[in-house]
Amino acid sequence: MIASSMSAMRLSALTSDPFALPTHGGDLGLAEARFGSPAQGWLDLSTGISPFAYPIPPLSADAWQRLPGLAEDLALREAAAAAYGIDDPDFLATAPGSQALLQILPRLRPFSQVAVIGPTYGEYSRCFSMAGHHVLPMETLDRTLDADVVVVCNPNNPDGRKHDTARLLELAEGLNARGGLLLVDEAFCDTAPDLSLAPHVRPGMVVLRSLGKFFGLAGMRLGFAVAEPQLARLLRQALGPWAVGGPVVEVGRTALSDAEWIAGQRKRLAQESALLNSLLGRAGLSSVGGTSLFTLVNAPRAWALFEYLGQQGILARPFSTAPRWLRFGLPPDEAGRQRLANALKDWR
Amino acid sequence: MIASSMSAMRLSALTSDPFALPTHGGDLGLAEARFGSPAQGWLDLSTGISPFAYPIPPLSADAWQRLPGLAEDLALREAAAAAYGIDDPDFLATAPGSQALLQILPRLRPFSQVAVIGPTYGEYSRCFSMAGHHVLPMETLDRTLDADVVVVCNPNNPDGRKHDTARLLELAEGLNARGGLLLVDEAFCDTAPDLSLAPHVRPGMVVLRSLGKFFGLAGMRLGFAVAEPQLARLLRQALGPWAVGGPVVEVGRTALSDAEWIAGQRKRLAQESALLNSLLGRAGLSSVGGTSLFTLVNAPRAWALFEYLGQQGILARPFSTAPRWLRFGLPPDEAGRQRLANALKDWR
Repeated sequence: MIASSMSAMRLSALTSDPFALPTHGGDLGLAEARFGSPAQGWLDLSTGISPFAYPIPPLSADAWQRLPGLAEDLALREAAAAAYGIDDPDFLATAPGSQALLQILPRLRPFSQVAVIGPTYGEYSRCFSMAGHHVLPMETLDRTLDADVVVVCNPNNPDGRKHDTARLLELAEGLNARGGLLLVDEAFCDTAPDLSLAPHVRPGMVVLRSLGKFFGLAGMRLGFAVAEPQLARLLRQALGPWAVGGPVVEVGRTALSDAEWIAGQRKRLAQESALLNSLLGRAGLSSVGGTSLFTLVNAPRAWALFEYLGQQGILARPFSTAPRWLRFGLPPDEAGRQRLANALKDWR
Repeated sequence: MIASSMSAMRLSALTSDPFALPTHGGDLGLAEARFGSPAQGWLDLSTGISPFAYPIPPLSADAWQRLPGLAEDLALREAAAAAYGIDDPDFLATAPGSQALLQILPRLRPFSQVAVIGPTYGEYSRCFSMAGHHVLPMETLDRTLDADVVVVCNPNNPDGRKHDTARLLELAEGLNARGGLLLVDEAFCDTAPDLSLAPHVRPGMVVLRSLGKFFGLAGMRLGFAVAEPQLARLLRQALGPWAVGGPVVEVGRTALSDAEWIAGQRKRLAQESALLNSLLGRAGLSSVGGTSLFTLVNAPRAWALFEYLGQQGILARPFSTAPRWLRFGLPPDEAGRQRLANALKDWR
């Protein structure tokens, strides 16, 4: 379905071990290499991407053909600033996904001790390590005094843990005083906007925002760094001109300006999340935490359950470091919920 | 037309001096801040982007919503490999525009002496300097023996100068023997495919390709690095997962696989370029060089001519370092040619 036969053969070469647990959710090509192509099609619950995507508006031919100019990027940053409660678009840098910021940011710093508060998204450690830094995995913010950089995901993926904003701002001040940096990834913060530090960024602090999850537009690749103007400008320069394309500028600007849709999506995700949680509860899978875009459950044999569900075309998200955790994204509809409920019933 | 009134005000703050010559072509927002909005609309000849763009095929909803998987990126790299005469997609890294590769590549190297063969595209020097390297502007390949990195655009922008491929391969071998790198930007090589070193890359060499100019899809942001597999893999890792979005993967794969369109485009650009050149010649502007996507002319008062044309809504490309040079991209149609011819007639 996804890969041509030639690609499918080559694909197995892409992953050193096709039966290792996946590093990321959402790759149906890898899932098919492992489980085959399911007759009913995939029910992909392996990500925190909303299945209720912002509708793509008609795009101009210019968007594809012309280089987006400074005015277009500025208009996009103005829309993002308004959506995120920021006064001034100079606090923003536009990137092709917040992942692109994770790739470049570590390369702009001298050698640092980097505390990553986890368990969390694996790319923080990977990107800082790859750029030559020393990564210290930590479970809480309590012992980060030796770190030059602290990375925290708020609310956290995959367990939904929320960090106190006053505490984070205090931490940022301490870090800034010694030339350090607090990096707060708010990829899932649109569902809990009160938690966002974007309106409160100060020197020594970068907040990441993204349109992938809440807007359901992960394939579009659009994210932002929020930082004080000097640092935001440095990030814009490091990403270079035309960091995101014209179609992305047009869709992103429209989506970020659509306050009514945003409010409706927030409500809908909360409702859909409640339905998912009660389904999982009925199946005896107790929630460890989550956001309204995903639920993390405690499953005694999580890797076996991942395997069992995968055989039936239902893709969940296991974690190689946590054999009792399984994360579920939102089913797109009642049929999806029913399919998941039926599969879980037979598992018990 | 392009900028909202608020943005227009802010826009003037984006450019330290709105009457400085532009750093890049193609920014109509900046052009309007300088010249106002022309009644007839802009005739934008300030880039080397083809006005005859590849038609955007219908896109799947999945393209916008899902993260493109490894299989999708592989399929795109397979299409690019076939188009560029490369046996193996492992030689390719996919990037959101070749500019993104220029931004990251310098950050992967230790401090280097970087010879940039010019006059040429300004971003080579900017990107290597910004990453802390020492840039040595040079006019020819003859005196690059002290350099760790040599950057050459082939054919060159803006003068169309072509470099001998055997000479470049020899240079790459010498550089590789001392841990150096030859970077060849082939942004305009689709019009002269025999010149391409993409099928001949070897260790110590990176070739950049792009869909912006020849396919007329600059707003899409898609480019590739071609390098031996180990280096290509390093570049893929440095760019990270999902470096380009799903819509870009779909359009790029379709466009690169469309051999008939590519052959037709090559022919068409040659014809359109001949028409542009004879028009410029009749106006007394002698060609200094170019490719079939742009022509560089010798104009005794090039900056004044740029200003004069801009006042009439015709945007050419001046160069702050070359007061006798003006570059013209292809007019999109006969009306555009007529408009340019009329304006030039009055100038003489």
